[in-house]
Amino acid sequence: MKVSDRAIRKPVSPAQVLHVGADGARRAPDRLVTEEPMEIRAHGPGEEPAPVVVTMRTPGNDFELAAGFLYGEGIVSAAPEMTLPEDLAANIVDALAPDAREPATRRFYTTSSCGICGKGALEEVEAIAPLVEGGPSVSRELLAGLPDRLTQPGFERTGGLHATGLFDAAGESLAVREDVGRHNAMDKVVGWALLSGALPLTEGLLCVSGRLAFELVQKAARAGAPILVGVGAPTSLAVELAEDRGVTLAGFARGGRVNVYTHPERVS
Amino acid sequence: MKVSDRAIRKPVSPAQVLHVGADGARRAPDRLVTEEPMEIRAHGPGEEPAPVVVTMRTPGNDFELAAGFLYGEGIVSAAPEMTLPEDLAANIVDALAPDAREPATRRFYTTSSCGICGKGALEEVEAIAPLVEGGPSVSRELLAGLPDRLTQPGFERTGGLHATGLFDAAGESLAVREDVGRHNAMDKVVGWALLSGALPLTEGLLCVSGRLAFELVQKAARAGAPILVGVGAPTSLAVELAEDRGVTLAGFARGGRVNVYTHPERVS
Repeated sequence: MKVSDRAIRKPVSPAQVLHVGADGARRAPDRLVTEEPMEIRAHGPGEEPAPVVVTMRTPGNDFELAAGFLYGEGIVSAAPEMTLPEDLAANIVDALAPDAREPATRRFYTTSSCGICGKGALEEVEAIAPLVEGGPSVSRELLAGLPDRLTQPGFERTGGLHATGLFDAAGESLAVREDVGRHNAMDKVVGWALLSGALPLTEGLLCVSGRLAFELVQKAARAGAPILVGVGAPTSLAVELAEDRGVTLAGFARGGRVNVYTHPERVS
Repeated sequence: MKVSDRAIRKPVSPAQVLHVGADGARRAPDRLVTEEPMEIRAHGPGEEPAPVVVTMRTPGNDFELAAGFLYGEGIVSAAPEMTLPEDLAANIVDALAPDAREPATRRFYTTSSCGICGKGALEEVEAIAPLVEGGPSVSRELLAGLPDRLTQPGFERTGGLHATGLFDAAGESLAVREDVGRHNAMDKVVGWALLSGALPLTEGLLCVSGRLAFELVQKAARAGAPILVGVGAPTSLAVELAEDRGVTLAGFARGGRVNVYTHPERVS
């Protein structure tokens, strides 16, 4: 078994930077968020692993990332058995799942009636994410304050990471994950829940450090999360999907205020 | 020819929002950045268009987005002839280029020696982006001030857009484009340059509103831009690629200060 330095790279990489200001230029050591490709493969029992995707990610929690990605895309529906190929330097993660499915027509958002469109995208998510019903009732204070509970050790050191956190209805943190990619951070949290047997997230609150686009709502709905809140703005299609799948979508959570875009009945 | 309301959607969509704060809840009209899928297809003369990718994008400048994406991936090397299929509601853009190539092994970042890794990613970019040499010398003041020249009409209205701008060596804006996806905003600017005959960007400065990850440096290097500056932090692999391809990479451009990570010889 061979382990290269790339396979054991840390989430933060040392670098040299030139700080330039009105007072001149100064060279100093710096820290950057690590970005490295990783391939996710999936297979059923007795099958060879087949490549699904290569993602640029921050090393760490790679099994969670792979499991969460595969779950979010509807490729697996139960916790897969995660393994590394023999060469650990290969940056490949294999997921063995009895129900592993072909990614099939995903990412094409096609409907027979209108070509490629948002309606087709909504229908593809409906096929893998049941309507979210019930769930906790949370106060405005708790919802607006969740971003402050997103402890981000990596961000503080590098300024370059996104975070996603899973909280219970009392606002206690269950899992916080960071990554250079905002989708990866969400995949890591959902993957943690999948591998821990904590899905669906019927009483869970998901909080993201950035903006709220379609795919983040897809991942939250697929995980059964009743509430998704972000620091930034949602997109039009994110709001359409959250409305359709029964998810409470909230944005601009800052300074005790929050904007609620869908299903406000969960906010007291 | 059929034109649905989706095909003519605006970059900003109307919505209803519930503002919740300590002073109670208030329903109000709001504006969201529009997010809709678009399929990019490519073909050579006499060939049927073949699907390349479906991207979630903000409608507007769709030809630029498609042309820039195909150029950045090395699928075309000259300005393609852009057309829409007969059904304009299909959200599909076709690019006809004499030199259209299969995407082939892209996005796999494979080297024979080490599986999937950053070195493989660098080598794939080397194959499509020549070393950037020469280029302008710019002052610290100009470089650090470029983000202020990124006029973002959409962001001001929705808080949900990324922007990329192309500037000349005197800091004059040549093109600024916005999109819900940071990569799309860059693709639109590069696509504008490709369709305008302005590539390579030998004297151009590219400025992005966010963080600097690998793929943004790839797109800048492929377009021949000597300088790429951002408001946020770069990743480790972005710095490695910029160093390798001769691009001056600068981040955290704010308040008259800027961090230079690679090739500082262009900053006076």
